[in-house]
Amino acid sequence: MATRQLKLGAFLLHNGHHVAAWRHPQADSGRDPFALYKKLAQTAERACFDTVFFADSVALTSGVGGLEPLTLLSALAAVTEHIGLIGTATTTYNEPYHVARKFASLDRISGGRAGWNLVTSDNASEAANFGRSDHVAHGERYARAREFHQVVQGLWNSWEDDAVLNDKEKGIQFDADKLHALNHKGDHFSVAGPLNVSRSPQGQPVVVQAGGSEAGKNLAAETADVVFTAHPNLASAQAFYRDLKSRVVHAGRPADSLKIMPGLFPVVGRTQEEAQEKFQLLQDLVVPKDGLALLGRMIGNFDLSAYPLDEPLPELPLTDNGQQSRQKLLTQLAQGENLSIRELYLRIAGGRGHFTLIGTPELIADQIQLWFENEAADGFNVMPPYLPGGLEDFAELVVPELQKRGLFRRSYEGRTLRDNLGLALPKK
Amino acid sequence: MATRQLKLGAFLLHNGHHVAAWRHPQADSGRDPFALYKKLAQTAERACFDTVFFADSVALTSGVGGLEPLTLLSALAAVTEHIGLIGTATTTYNEPYHVARKFASLDRISGGRAGWNLVTSDNASEAANFGRSDHVAHGERYARAREFHQVVQGLWNSWEDDAVLNDKEKGIQFDADKLHALNHKGDHFSVAGPLNVSRSPQGQPVVVQAGGSEAGKNLAAETADVVFTAHPNLASAQAFYRDLKSRVVHAGRPADSLKIMPGLFPVVGRTQEEAQEKFQLLQDLVVPKDGLALLGRMIGNFDLSAYPLDEPLPELPLTDNGQQSRQKLLTQLAQGENLSIRELYLRIAGGRGHFTLIGTPELIADQIQLWFENEAADGFNVMPPYLPGGLEDFAELVVPELQKRGLFRRSYEGRTLRDNLGLALPKK
Repeated sequence: MATRQLKLGAFLLHNGHHVAAWRHPQADSGRDPFALYKKLAQTAERACFDTVFFADSVALTSGVGGLEPLTLLSALAAVTEHIGLIGTATTTYNEPYHVARKFASLDRISGGRAGWNLVTSDNASEAANFGRSDHVAHGERYARAREFHQVVQGLWNSWEDDAVLNDKEKGIQFDADKLHALNHKGDHFSVAGPLNVSRSPQGQPVVVQAGGSEAGKNLAAETADVVFTAHPNLASAQAFYRDLKSRVVHAGRPADSLKIMPGLFPVVGRTQEEAQEKFQLLQDLVVPKDGLALLGRMIGNFDLSAYPLDEPLPELPLTDNGQQSRQKLLTQLAQGENLSIRELYLRIAGGRGHFTLIGTPELIADQIQLWFENEAADGFNVMPPYLPGGLEDFAELVVPELQKRGLFRRSYEGRTLRDNLGLALPKK
Repeated sequence: MATRQLKLGAFLLHNGHHVAAWRHPQADSGRDPFALYKKLAQTAERACFDTVFFADSVALTSGVGGLEPLTLLSALAAVTEHIGLIGTATTTYNEPYHVARKFASLDRISGGRAGWNLVTSDNASEAANFGRSDHVAHGERYARAREFHQVVQGLWNSWEDDAVLNDKEKGIQFDADKLHALNHKGDHFSVAGPLNVSRSPQGQPVVVQAGGSEAGKNLAAETADVVFTAHPNLASAQAFYRDLKSRVVHAGRPADSLKIMPGLFPVVGRTQEEAQEKFQLLQDLVVPKDGLALLGRMIGNFDLSAYPLDEPLPELPLTDNGQQSRQKLLTQLAQGENLSIRELYLRIAGGRGHFTLIGTPELIADQIQLWFENEAADGFNVMPPYLPGGLEDFAELVVPELQKRGLFRRSYEGRTLRDNLGLALPKK
């Protein structure tokens, strides 16, 4: 396939992305969570999605407890064959040896389909599970993240592609000249290596990032294969896309070596009216407590439960955590349109500030194509509003429309995630 | 089944337990390691084994890199239905929140089949991957391990059995009174909780330990569900069994609430001669470099490569790490029988000091029965010499013999690992 192809991720939360998804008539009871994820991953794979994608938090931040991404993705590796498996692991409260090893192991188990979403942790409830009384400041988090990434990549390069010989005749298991210690000594880590997992068919797991700050964008420009990002409209996405791609080139990499995939919250109907009804059903199910908690988290981890729901948003101090830009956006939105707290949380109850499309497959495909062809996106991380129906609608109605237009594959191009994303094999 | 039943684990190393297993004609190339493990786990499950069991090290200690146990077990959870899934995670270089969460997640994915083998790390190559210049001293390791276990168990008790409601009608996801923070503050850890994985069908993952020191035995007596141990003969196993069971009672627990499972290295033949031939085939394949490395590791992490192979073992300083008792045993063995280094490593090339049986299914079943009925073992962790044949031989030849004698199940008793091991559901 010579023409540039769209990339699609399935960003899965247990009940779906809408804050009321768990109350949807289709919502799963949670008794056998793996059965649901297996069904979802297989649905996404049948539709040729590039990846499933799992966010993460090392604290109980919302709803009931879910599954941990690395264990979940490993189980999904055993029941899928083609789809990429991207999970989040924080650099703030982990050790690089463990992270390098677990993703390398997932990469080998899956035959080269693993991806690591590198994040930093910015909230106090995570800090409190790791012996800290407050979250780590932004600058320190990014300095640690950069060194963390360097160590992980160094460990992934422990074994050259042809280091393992298993020569039974000569009694030689591996070529010692092709196995490399790391001996890293830096400000945050001291790691000898080598890694005890040998090299995967795709060389290294794919690295995903989502930082929107200056430090985050620069780290991504230098080190990420994929960037996940949130934009409510074309202009915002274009500004981000052009900015980040120019940073990639400035870092000495081809612009196309980093794929930019904004989030997309789609509500699909066979008619516009049906799509609106599906959305309204969810809006009507929002529990005020859940809406308030979501808004509080998104605006910088504030507890808003003491404020009257139908009054305007109070003045809030500027947050130090990673959600500063989102805090500003929401504050401006509330002030600009004179929204009450309730009206504001209903605005974000679905897409949480991500690109939101409510309509027919044609309408949604039109907008995807517009972004894809106008320097706003290399693909999208699809955020189904509820599950399994929200993913099935996209897979069965929108994907065929994208395929008809020649924008999206009808079968997987390659064997590994890098093959399918069109990323080069890392040098070694 | 009213009579006491034997428990069996399948202790899997990539090529098998014999140090020359990787050179066996059947040995896997390592290109698709998961395909092999899937086949092995399914073989063990067909034979009604209680568990598969994976050891671990957070450094490259031998051979080529393998897979990480938590990712591997999660993938195996998706392709098995009954067998328990036990993996090792060290308390020395991990955070309790991560360990509690990953095993809880595996437990939910597998429908209540997870087990955590709690170990401490005693070697310098592991230390060097986590910013330490030398390994942690024995006493400090156990103090940390004890507190680590306390935190993990506290986190596993975050959610009461009926805390999750998912009451769509009333809009209530969980009963806040049945969700508990931990707020642990101790010498080594400060962890707020609650865990972000809700409770599994078996309450908590099974806890396995293998410490042979005073500190290790006391911790096991107070906290372990299963103990894995190494004994070359009946008398040694009986002494350990009686000692540990009395400690269990002293700790206020029923003796039967802790299952003792010594390792068993079986070489099975239809005749005694066939079994001996199978063993000799492996002995003849031992590469001196591999034999020396194994001996060096087992005797306390010494590099023996400079010593002449056919001379006696040199005097070695007493090791501070967890292998003191093994070091003494091997030194006495070498001196008592006047063994050369080569002869000594050939003695341990198979069972590494574990109970070793080379013979017919009847002979092996006789010995298992003898240990099981004479206060030496509640079951065995079976260590196949090579793979897949060594496991298949045990499953197809020895297990039916044990079943015929009424010692071992013909189908799984329950749904969870605790059910099958005959362990009570932890209170909560």
